[in-house]
Amino acid sequence: MRRASRRAPAMAMAACAVALIPLAVGGADDDASPIFDVRLPAGYRDWQLISVAHEAGSLNDLRAVLGNDVAVKAYRDGTRPFPDGTIIGRLAWKYVPSEENNAIFGQAQSFVPGAATNIQFSVKDSRKYAETGGWGYGQFEDGKPNRSKALMETCFPCHARANKADDFVFTRYTP
Amino acid sequence: MRRASRRAPAMAMAACAVALIPLAVGGADDDASPIFDVRLPAGYRDWQLISVAHEAGSLNDLRAVLGNDVAVKAYRDGTRPFPDGTIIGRLAWKYVPSEENNAIFGQAQSFVPGAATNIQFSVKDSRKYAETGGWGYGQFEDGKPNRSKALMETCFPCHARANKADDFVFTRYTP
Repeated sequence: MRRASRRAPAMAMAACAVALIPLAVGGADDDASPIFDVRLPAGYRDWQLISVAHEAGSLNDLRAVLGNDVAVKAYRDGTRPFPDGTIIGRLAWKYVPSEENNAIFGQAQSFVPGAATNIQFSVKDSRKYAETGGWGYGQFEDGKPNRSKALMETCFPCHARANKADDFVFTRYTP
Repeated sequence: MRRASRRAPAMAMAACAVALIPLAVGGADDDASPIFDVRLPAGYRDWQLISVAHEAGSLNDLRAVLGNDVAVKAYRDGTRPFPDGTIIGRLAWKYVPSEENNAIFGQAQSFVPGAATNIQFSVKDSRKYAETGGWGYGQFEDGKPNRSKALMETCFPCHARANKADDFVFTRYTP
């Protein structure tokens, strides 16, 4: 891991940290989320399933939550807080009716994933992300990080409202 | 694999096949689906994700479709018909609102998995299941096969209404 990526990710420090990175290195950071420096984890689509959900309202999506090996083991063992190295990935797709299935089933009942909306990752590193509960965040669209610092600043304040006993994670494991 | 399990699974032959199995062997069959002799695959919960869905109406569930390595490779490569050895698993849970999430998000938008309903498997064996499009079926509740022959007799007639070009499978892979 690059030494620069070990910097403290506290939101208050973000502007300073960015200012310290030479422009030539800054180019590489286009592949990482602002503030938290989270990159798209290799092979995440092969990870095991933690759970699924439907968010209605303006999100209007179907979602799957996957975890790397550390995350899935911690979920299954009930280990909290999650150990360093945990990565939880939330994939989401537009919530669309399946006209094809509905025609076969004879009623409007089937909803399936449409186009991908975005993928979010929560990365546990209790030292690097000490000021945000040990969690770093990233959102990716079409394989690229969303580079909005304002968006990233919304991650932890919302997760902080989840139970501390759940280590600021919303999703429960579904056997 | 037991020799008895290689019998042709045609629905019309099921009564004869069962009649030919001695009672002592019949006891072991309590672990398999009727007609198709499908058993709960070891380690299926570790399989990779194919897709997710919501079925409304009387099913009223959230579901995840997982696949063994053969299934996932075939989905990703677009291989049709699916090769022998393919197993597709459909897990489903009651569709329930998350009061906890809704309180945090400030609106009723979040639906999560409740209690498991059942798990269904589609097993590809073009020789064993020649008379049902190459597919054998099983439904499991609390880890045990549903032993209703009448239920199993509904599987292929419904799947047969899916496109033959999709090899009688409803679920598409969601990247």
